[in-house]
Amino acid sequence: MKYDTIQLAHGGGGRLSDALIKEEILSRFGDGPLKSLPDGATLPKIEGEIVFSTDSYVVKPYKFNGGNIGNLAVHGTVNDISVAGGIPRYLSLAMIIEEGFPISELRLILDTIKTSANECGVKIVTGDTKVVARGQCDGIYINTSGIGEKLKNFDLNKSRVKAGDAVLVSGNIGDHGMAILAAREGINIENGLVSDTASVHRLVQTAYKEYAEHIKFMRDPTRGGVAAVLNEIVSGTNVGIELDSSKLPFSAGTLSIAEMLGIDLLNVACEGRMMLICDASVVDEILDLWRAMPEGIGAAIIGYVNSDTERVSIKTVTGGRRLVDVPTGELLPRIC
Amino acid sequence: MKYDTIQLAHGGGGRLSDALIKEEILSRFGDGPLKSLPDGATLPKIEGEIVFSTDSYVVKPYKFNGGNIGNLAVHGTVNDISVAGGIPRYLSLAMIIEEGFPISELRLILDTIKTSANECGVKIVTGDTKVVARGQCDGIYINTSGIGEKLKNFDLNKSRVKAGDAVLVSGNIGDHGMAILAAREGINIENGLVSDTASVHRLVQTAYKEYAEHIKFMRDPTRGGVAAVLNEIVSGTNVGIELDSSKLPFSAGTLSIAEMLGIDLLNVACEGRMMLICDASVVDEILDLWRAMPEGIGAAIIGYVNSDTERVSIKTVTGGRRLVDVPTGELLPRIC
Repeated sequence: MKYDTIQLAHGGGGRLSDALIKEEILSRFGDGPLKSLPDGATLPKIEGEIVFSTDSYVVKPYKFNGGNIGNLAVHGTVNDISVAGGIPRYLSLAMIIEEGFPISELRLILDTIKTSANECGVKIVTGDTKVVARGQCDGIYINTSGIGEKLKNFDLNKSRVKAGDAVLVSGNIGDHGMAILAAREGINIENGLVSDTASVHRLVQTAYKEYAEHIKFMRDPTRGGVAAVLNEIVSGTNVGIELDSSKLPFSAGTLSIAEMLGIDLLNVACEGRMMLICDASVVDEILDLWRAMPEGIGAAIIGYVNSDTERVSIKTVTGGRRLVDVPTGELLPRIC
Repeated sequence: MKYDTIQLAHGGGGRLSDALIKEEILSRFGDGPLKSLPDGATLPKIEGEIVFSTDSYVVKPYKFNGGNIGNLAVHGTVNDISVAGGIPRYLSLAMIIEEGFPISELRLILDTIKTSANECGVKIVTGDTKVVARGQCDGIYINTSGIGEKLKNFDLNKSRVKAGDAVLVSGNIGDHGMAILAAREGINIENGLVSDTASVHRLVQTAYKEYAEHIKFMRDPTRGGVAAVLNEIVSGTNVGIELDSSKLPFSAGTLSIAEMLGIDLLNVACEGRMMLICDASVVDEILDLWRAMPEGIGAAIIGYVNSDTERVSIKTVTGGRRLVDVPTGELLPRIC
């Protein structure tokens, strides 16, 4: 590349656009349908139903302890497809880049995307690059959309959730959100706060393989955190959920900063965790399967479904009980 | 909605996010897979190959004569799928909205998206809404990704393009780009410049039905315009293309403003036109089919493929011949 930073002309459709796409995109992702840069990728037939998902990523800062906007954009969409019951197969990659953005940083992000996509078994097959003038975005925004293959006989529907069902989380809660907050506010503690950004696709497939019919609902607790997911599950149903505060898994550093700042980690986003609701008869088995995997080592049964219509509550350490509500306002903008 | 403008909390995953999604998204698009707001939409099986495409839209201003960012975002992705040889079926809708954006304007855009999607026969099945603080984007940016069903026995490959083939365009060139320029610069002329934003899916399917095997390449001339598409086609091949300047279709108003400003309309984006290269033996028939359709009424045979390796040229009105090159710089940022 002739330039060190992104120019408006890199998005203009002319020679500079062409050079950027060839040198930075095709060099990394050009071994599949992207090769001839068609307007749309032609993909092989998918047997069965299709899972389709999209997310835009605007995380600030775009680099943080544990990753950057690149792996976040891969994991986020891979996770959405996974918890919807699909095996992720293909991703699109659309970038909006601010004029002046360093090309070295773009390369770092694209390298991360390539590595993460490989780890998740997905292929980047189509894309788009737009450049906006200085001050019209904040560095870089990325959209990934994804196509997955729906796992058969996997009936995920919150109407199946019944009193007595167990609530699982796959690892420590709130690490991503607190790592972003720390990066943004310049909070430095020993051993740092590390984002949990990661893929949950293996967790889903492992649980599915053995216990598909006992799994009733799955979701990844991103914006709004565990509290928002649980409230969404009970909303419009005749069940409630009670969490056990002594069972909630937290990283020590994350918890201490959250307590210092008065933040409830149940409202803080994860980007590499999933929640699962299943029949209590199989929850120990799923927990064991997950704990045997690196990405599920911190998994825990955090509560049970009850008949307390549309209410999410938590049993406190002192034996009391309080309501777990969804925040009305904005805790932390641009978390993902 | 309690607010007149978008608040940061509308993107936070809490109660306000929930209200925005329910009142503005579900009310318009909630009759399909979006209904239960899953992380990923489950779509019925697609027979045969799949066409997958993505584009982000950052057009400035977001409203212009002939449309707004909403129909542009539908048409753009529908067109990409169409010229790649697919029947568009499903779209995702991901919005990045600036804090303070008027909710009345968001409604206008969403209404336009709904109308355009209906006209194009596509369904909005999954989505995402992010809100960034003031000054971190310019009003609203939209990404649509799309899934289409590949038309069978449609071999679109520029390696099939041979000397003697004809080059068709489906309507007047450069109207979208000049309408954006006019809107941005406050140029007001009688009867105005009107964007050509529209879908080309019917043009593709009509030509396919009768002449599939004779069609060798299709593309929509967006960023970089007709010149960029033609240069891309001949690049890496042993053919060239000669245009006939007397055959190029232009709107009178667009042409007069372009001449006044010294802009070559071959470099200006269309958003509702397509180009097609076919065997010369069927070009008159395709032209007749297209001209009988409202969206193809201005179609024209603008040139022929020759053996002038990798060169695109144009025969001028005075009988001369000049090269048609791709612009190096940025003619007009944020055209789409």
